[in-house]
Amino acid sequence: MKKLKVGFVGLGCRGRDLINTTLHIPEMEIVAACDLYEDRVADTVKRLKEYDGRDIFATLDYKELVNCANVDAVIITTAWESHCEIACYAMRAGKITAMEVGGAYNLEEVWELVDTQEKTKTPFMFLENCCFGEYELMITNMVRQGLFGDISHCSGSYAHDLRDEITTGKEKRHYRLRNYIARNCENYPTHELGPIAKLLGVNRGNRMTRLVSISSKQQGLTDFVRRNPETIDQSLLDVKFAQGDVVNTLIECEDGSTISLKLDTSLPRFYSREFTVHGTKGYYSELANAVFLDGDEEHFNAARFRGNGKEYIEKYSAPIWKNLSDEDRKLGHGGMDYFELKQFAEFALSGKPFTVDVYDAASWMAVTCLSEQSIKEGRWVDIPDFTRGNYKERPLEDVVELR
Amino acid sequence: MKKLKVGFVGLGCRGRDLINTTLHIPEMEIVAACDLYEDRVADTVKRLKEYDGRDIFATLDYKELVNCANVDAVIITTAWESHCEIACYAMRAGKITAMEVGGAYNLEEVWELVDTQEKTKTPFMFLENCCFGEYELMITNMVRQGLFGDISHCSGSYAHDLRDEITTGKEKRHYRLRNYIARNCENYPTHELGPIAKLLGVNRGNRMTRLVSISSKQQGLTDFVRRNPETIDQSLLDVKFAQGDVVNTLIECEDGSTISLKLDTSLPRFYSREFTVHGTKGYYSELANAVFLDGDEEHFNAARFRGNGKEYIEKYSAPIWKNLSDEDRKLGHGGMDYFELKQFAEFALSGKPFTVDVYDAASWMAVTCLSEQSIKEGRWVDIPDFTRGNYKERPLEDVVELR
Repeated sequence: MKKLKVGFVGLGCRGRDLINTTLHIPEMEIVAACDLYEDRVADTVKRLKEYDGRDIFATLDYKELVNCANVDAVIITTAWESHCEIACYAMRAGKITAMEVGGAYNLEEVWELVDTQEKTKTPFMFLENCCFGEYELMITNMVRQGLFGDISHCSGSYAHDLRDEITTGKEKRHYRLRNYIARNCENYPTHELGPIAKLLGVNRGNRMTRLVSISSKQQGLTDFVRRNPETIDQSLLDVKFAQGDVVNTLIECEDGSTISLKLDTSLPRFYSREFTVHGTKGYYSELANAVFLDGDEEHFNAARFRGNGKEYIEKYSAPIWKNLSDEDRKLGHGGMDYFELKQFAEFALSGKPFTVDVYDAASWMAVTCLSEQSIKEGRWVDIPDFTRGNYKERPLEDVVELR
Repeated sequence: MKKLKVGFVGLGCRGRDLINTTLHIPEMEIVAACDLYEDRVADTVKRLKEYDGRDIFATLDYKELVNCANVDAVIITTAWESHCEIACYAMRAGKITAMEVGGAYNLEEVWELVDTQEKTKTPFMFLENCCFGEYELMITNMVRQGLFGDISHCSGSYAHDLRDEITTGKEKRHYRLRNYIARNCENYPTHELGPIAKLLGVNRGNRMTRLVSISSKQQGLTDFVRRNPETIDQSLLDVKFAQGDVVNTLIECEDGSTISLKLDTSLPRFYSREFTVHGTKGYYSELANAVFLDGDEEHFNAARFRGNGKEYIEKYSAPIWKNLSDEDRKLGHGGMDYFELKQFAEFALSGKPFTVDVYDAASWMAVTCLSEQSIKEGRWVDIPDFTRGNYKERPLEDVVELR
């Protein structure tokens, strides 16, 4: 079997997790690793040596990794702010590129991503793992089969209590901390927006035209830091965080459907992506894990529907989820990471175009800097068409069709 | 016992429901009834005659009812567009006024409501029954006790599949139909906004400063009408509805907290007001009926929290809900209608100021015409301060404190 020889750039939490997943994908072989921090590089070299005795190429300079002749593909799992720069460098070097998610800092960096991909034609995949999510795909599958009718509105959230991760992480060098101090925006839109954009055919027949955002006051992190002085870095006690606790964003699509997003990461709550779909024949809420199909009875009895999503799994699960083994399910975020890296390897080796591509990366990431502008200026902001009109002709290439 | 002698103006569904509730409140006596339609008036006269042999004053002209010497108080349950006009007339006549909810058609009518109340000093209550809701009050109670910390964001919806009511009602004269044909806005904001505004101290220390709205495309009603040609009025087959299926509204408050509202009434789904509260120490979602308090474990296991709201009822129910009999609970919307009319009667008789007053009515209803403007003009719109600066001094008067 031909194997895709990959190098990892970025060996923080996410890099380490995806390395673990990659080790279970026979189509890939990790041959190189890179990080700005020596300790992380040393840990990774040691981890892989212990795993199966292999020696990998290790470096502190991502350019060295990209230019390493043995590397076919680069997986970028660095801090948000370096994603685009490294991805462009890798594409220019002709190395198949997989880039982790994050938000854009400005439109220039995402336009450069698009321009570079178009110019170099290097295969590029955006690693939005939630596009491979079990319920996101099940509902998309039901939508494609017509069970939800025509879709008018979708919403989603990145609702994840990150107070501990942001403020008390062992490594004070966390990129989230820098962002929460310096910026106020929808700083992490893709986990919820990705599956919605796929469902609505964004960049494939449809496109997002404009957005408006609002930020609540910031008090969650400050309150958390004050209540936990013994576990956090003392310097944080005087820090003023720019990032509001909850940021809501409304997006208009060309086809008249709308999207609402919520960033909710510095207050206590249980995790949810709150994936929600409103169609003329059906409704789904991941928060309640509730499916409602036209004709269902007792619509005043919400309790009857809470949790019923699991009853649809057997019949409507997306093909890739049907045959997932329990072992694979353990490989990162309940299987999502496994699917995305499996697709990356298979499609890279066969030359098939990735379903989550550079136009998706650019338009979803752009929400971050555009929301920042919208909050600052108190107005609607136009969303560029990164496909330059080609979205009209681009066919749906659904993750849900993968087998 | 002194009884409050009330006249009902408006004998459609809502009027009939509240008449039934009123009959179970010993502090009130229905002495008059009015509607534009003779059949409704005749039905009501007959219903009350059959109930206990009473004769009431019946008229087609609301002014006659208001001026009837026997009437102490007027309860207005007419079509949305006539609420303010009738309320102002009743206040000018010195009749204690209770006005059903709806959205404003323009700022002038709500300013007139405020001006008239201030000038006449006639007691005025806004009948927002959801301010008396069981879970809304339980959570408000927990918030007042500090269990949720400081609140950053709240959201709510009027999520109610009204397709049948709008299009196939026995009475083609339904005011909703007129609205859905002519307007595109957050047409019914108060059920979700009322309890949130109360919780955030809007008009009592805090105020709403501006809003922005977006509307999805309209397809729900058209699809419904086409799929049900045998049950709907045939003339609706060619109607173009102006009202988008889902309208999202973001509201900023002076204290930096934010509110998001969703109108969702022409697509299939189960009913929910989606009352949601995000604080520094706690979270509640009515959609999932889930409470999460800081320190709760397993925050990646959303299923563990779904439905756990009921576990907090015994300890944290608002006082008025603690002693509600099963019989009273049956009196309209699970008890809410009973509480609001009970408060109306008791406070009217004792001269106490109502907790849901003219400033609440004006500011909450104004969301409708302001959202219409925001959608049309694609921009943020300022929300007037109907208290003219007095909100700064007005103390919290919580429904949650009622016993």
